[in-house]
Amino acid sequence: MPVARWATERWTAFRRRPDRLFPVLDWARSYDAETLSADLTAAVIVTIMLIPQSLAYALLAGLPAEIGLYASIAPLITYGVFGTSRTLAVGPVAVISLMTAAAVGKIAPQGSADYLAAAMLLAFLSGLFLLGMGVLRLGFLASFLSHPVISGFITASGILIAASQLRHLLGVRIHGETLPEILEGLWTALPQTRIDALVIGVGATAFLFWTRSRLKPLLMRLGWPDKRAAIAVRAAPVLAVVVTTLVAWGFDLAARGLSVVGDVPPGLPSLSLPPLDGALLAQLAMPALIISIVGYVETISVAQTLAARRRERIDPDQELIALGASNVGAAMSGGFPVTGGFARSVVNFDSGARTPAAGAFTAAAMALATLTLTGALYHLPQATLAATIIVAVLSLVDLGALARVWAYSRADGAAMMLTIVGTLLAGVEIGIALGVGLSLALHLFRSSRPHVAVVGQVPGTEHFRNVDRHEVVTSPEILSLRIDESLYFPNARFLEDSVYDRIAADRRIRHVILMCSAVNFIDSSALESLEAINRQLKDSGVSLHLSEVKGPVMDRLARSHLLHDLGGRVFLTHFDALASLVPELTSRTLAQPRTLSSHA
Amino acid sequence: MPVARWATERWTAFRRRPDRLFPVLDWARSYDAETLSADLTAAVIVTIMLIPQSLAYALLAGLPAEIGLYASIAPLITYGVFGTSRTLAVGPVAVISLMTAAAVGKIAPQGSADYLAAAMLLAFLSGLFLLGMGVLRLGFLASFLSHPVISGFITASGILIAASQLRHLLGVRIHGETLPEILEGLWTALPQTRIDALVIGVGATAFLFWTRSRLKPLLMRLGWPDKRAAIAVRAAPVLAVVVTTLVAWGFDLAARGLSVVGDVPPGLPSLSLPPLDGALLAQLAMPALIISIVGYVETISVAQTLAARRRERIDPDQELIALGASNVGAAMSGGFPVTGGFARSVVNFDSGARTPAAGAFTAAAMALATLTLTGALYHLPQATLAATIIVAVLSLVDLGALARVWAYSRADGAAMMLTIVGTLLAGVEIGIALGVGLSLALHLFRSSRPHVAVVGQVPGTEHFRNVDRHEVVTSPEILSLRIDESLYFPNARFLEDSVYDRIAADRRIRHVILMCSAVNFIDSSALESLEAINRQLKDSGVSLHLSEVKGPVMDRLARSHLLHDLGGRVFLTHFDALASLVPELTSRTLAQPRTLSSHA
Repeated sequence: MPVARWATERWTAFRRRPDRLFPVLDWARSYDAETLSADLTAAVIVTIMLIPQSLAYALLAGLPAEIGLYASIAPLITYGVFGTSRTLAVGPVAVISLMTAAAVGKIAPQGSADYLAAAMLLAFLSGLFLLGMGVLRLGFLASFLSHPVISGFITASGILIAASQLRHLLGVRIHGETLPEILEGLWTALPQTRIDALVIGVGATAFLFWTRSRLKPLLMRLGWPDKRAAIAVRAAPVLAVVVTTLVAWGFDLAARGLSVVGDVPPGLPSLSLPPLDGALLAQLAMPALIISIVGYVETISVAQTLAARRRERIDPDQELIALGASNVGAAMSGGFPVTGGFARSVVNFDSGARTPAAGAFTAAAMALATLTLTGALYHLPQATLAATIIVAVLSLVDLGALARVWAYSRADGAAMMLTIVGTLLAGVEIGIALGVGLSLALHLFRSSRPHVAVVGQVPGTEHFRNVDRHEVVTSPEILSLRIDESLYFPNARFLEDSVYDRIAADRRIRHVILMCSAVNFIDSSALESLEAINRQLKDSGVSLHLSEVKGPVMDRLARSHLLHDLGGRVFLTHFDALASLVPELTSRTLAQPRTLSSHA
Repeated sequence: MPVARWATERWTAFRRRPDRLFPVLDWARSYDAETLSADLTAAVIVTIMLIPQSLAYALLAGLPAEIGLYASIAPLITYGVFGTSRTLAVGPVAVISLMTAAAVGKIAPQGSADYLAAAMLLAFLSGLFLLGMGVLRLGFLASFLSHPVISGFITASGILIAASQLRHLLGVRIHGETLPEILEGLWTALPQTRIDALVIGVGATAFLFWTRSRLKPLLMRLGWPDKRAAIAVRAAPVLAVVVTTLVAWGFDLAARGLSVVGDVPPGLPSLSLPPLDGALLAQLAMPALIISIVGYVETISVAQTLAARRRERIDPDQELIALGASNVGAAMSGGFPVTGGFARSVVNFDSGARTPAAGAFTAAAMALATLTLTGALYHLPQATLAATIIVAVLSLVDLGALARVWAYSRADGAAMMLTIVGTLLAGVEIGIALGVGLSLALHLFRSSRPHVAVVGQVPGTEHFRNVDRHEVVTSPEILSLRIDESLYFPNARFLEDSVYDRIAADRRIRHVILMCSAVNFIDSSALESLEAINRQLKDSGVSLHLSEVKGPVMDRLARSHLLHDLGGRVFLTHFDALASLVPELTSRTLAQPRTLSSHA
């Protein structure tokens, strides 16, 4: 029944507003020549940046270089149809590529057909998870990842990636997924360093770092306009690729043993479903889920940042569908997991992209590159691609953030530290699991101790305030407790402790009144605690009363036995409760303040 | 440094109040003859109940029967020294015994020496976890388990246990940890049913059910006093044990193949540390942790219920230490994991126990039984013990609770259902993990949508109220948002969405004021969200202001860059903010209500 109702509702909603599911219908209507020109310009600039990056991230994921190109075609088009961000660019990104390598590396050896099939299946599964979360509107699951955990995870991933790429700079073969393994491998392999790889790799790295920091100011001093100078910086990796490819080709370094991209099959990928294998699906489910959530968090952060700059809106649940469809698209066109990338999206935005059509043009340009460049890529040294990766990921490493977070909050700093150390020493999956576990535990710890105040009457008024902070009057027979949070399982036991401790400490108490003005919700655990408190208080001759219970909370309580079994009563206001239980207190204090015991 | 400081503090606290760590020092001082007599009586009654129960739970855990006796000696004494509850009785209980069988069954075959060693190690590890949690005051971890999850888990465990014990009633050998496996095993083995086991088992079960429901009223009608009748009911299992043992001995059924307890080594267990094996420790760590938490939740619930009845106090963190010490005690004296049992504690309480000395006397009586009874136990049929277990656990099964919880809250009902189904179909560990996962997800979902209200000025006052509920005035240039919850990672993104959606929807807005009167805490994730909001608003020409920030929150914000980079200002009150940003609004409305746009 609920499923049928839900399906009907969704279908009606879709019939009324089809552009909610296909935002393309919204922006395509007002598409004009000026927008076209802006989108085309952005597409050219983004493509120049994407070609080396796509090849490099495929390498990082342990896949053949052309897979990076494939993963930059279909996803851009699918995102354009379903996405609500005007300028987000999806494709392979560093962290997700590393996670892909970690997940698939457990299943098959790099370079095998099984490895490639598993990577495609990982994208497919991750796409299905995202689509499912989108349809069920489970975007809130991303909030499992706190900012310190994400930030720590990205920093640690950046370090891991940079360390792992050093092998290409040295031209050696090593394996390892954790920092100690990688460093030990590099140390052992150091004597086998290839001088050609080292020269090309270190040269390219130095050149790219120089262009990042110095090229733009230099060009601007030479009189280039700001925008053209920025494009030149983005094109620098292409220059590195071209020059080192020419060097490798000129000296025929591949024949002498230098690792190059090698043979790339010509033509576009064919559309097909990845082979579905039950055992493989089970093995990939958990990594696919983590990749989905990490990828979604990255996507939504980038999309929201860019949308806010132009006061546009994005729909977080629709973004799940768009990213899911993009990953299914990647899987069906020979690609691997993709997500909304920060660098490429910012470049797209800065280059003036106005609509997702810019992404579609980029996809067309990438397809053209795939068709024409494959031969030219043969001599491209892997050391150059590694240099591209190292320069890109080192900008992700932000150890200063650790100091800032630690200074602001020890607890968050500890979660971040654990994520970093866990990721470096035990790999990406364990690292992120540790961080999430610790953040949840800390969150639960905070939720488990809500603020509970003993309140008394402000003399001469109907107001009640904390006895520790205000001069108020109380009666020794009455314990008035104000609970400053909703009641649910993390704090249910604390509530019991609070009441029992206080009535055990003062045997004069005959009435306990819980003031529920800040209680928006009472879950079953808290309900059972209230029932237990009521029972125990009854047994020891004390009545439990409630005051200022909100309407929705009261409606729900009416469905339980609590109100029926309650030793005391439910009062509309706390003053009513006092006036009814100790009329002499309220009347006297209204007339003449502070005649009973008072707290300063 | 912090560790050293912590250790010093704890040492000072211990020097000042040694009875906090050893509550025995507190109650032993005022021990007198009357208390002694009450405690001795309770001990005799509890012992009569414990002997068959201890043997039965050992059988349920897959251990030799005498291990149940051993586990009922040392833990009672250790709890007496460290525990803060006057009447809690620790020892083997049904659910923990089942969990022990599930955990240890994966490691060694039942009946082997390795199985016994693993069970002892499990108790040891679980004790260490509890001690660690006690020293670090991590009792709040128990709040990971919501009431519906615990209740569902106990119901499902009861069903699983009862089903698994049917094999002893049929006298067949089957294996299986999940309900389908057990039922399939029983079905297949049905033709091998032993008539002697069936007669004894079904007879004992029927007798025990009869005594539970009918014996007490019958005896009272015969003129027995209430208390003595209750003791007779408790002694009924002993009668069943004696009669069936005599029957089995008289007909020499053991020689004909009936499963009986058999040879029990005479004498008390020797004190020794269980063998510590790294690989085994790693395998047992997760089950030990789950057993610790489930056992602690059961202990603390029972202890708190009993303490509240006499207005006594228990200390939840000290209970962790007491239960941890009891498990270490069990492990070192040949036992298996123990916890505070509900039935035995209630019997102890009802029989008049006043102090943990009653537990020590029970331990002495159990030791005496171990020394004298071992020979007599040879012919005790396992079918009788199975009958004891079935009757005990069926009282744990409460499917009505599912209906109650479902009626009160669909979300909690779903978590309970998932726990029950998961436990029955996939076993205890997966079942509880599913329940905890779903409760946490639901909790996070609720936390991720805090109440955020757009507020306006109540005309003629300095008060601000929700525009949807009150007649208030607002300015089109100003968005006043009141956030009714602390800001932390589960709701950080929601905060961003709330602000961005509203400023995208109304382009007249020039100022956003966040009214923080209900914000008790801002974690790093929320701080980053505020910084991002501030940055994005600045970029689109809107200023972010804060009002009514609490002192401790402000102190913490001072350690960040937010206040320095803030596009707007921080105002003491929301009225100050309005008065400063749109003086014409506040002055006009104070003088003459509702001149600007107003909301009904």
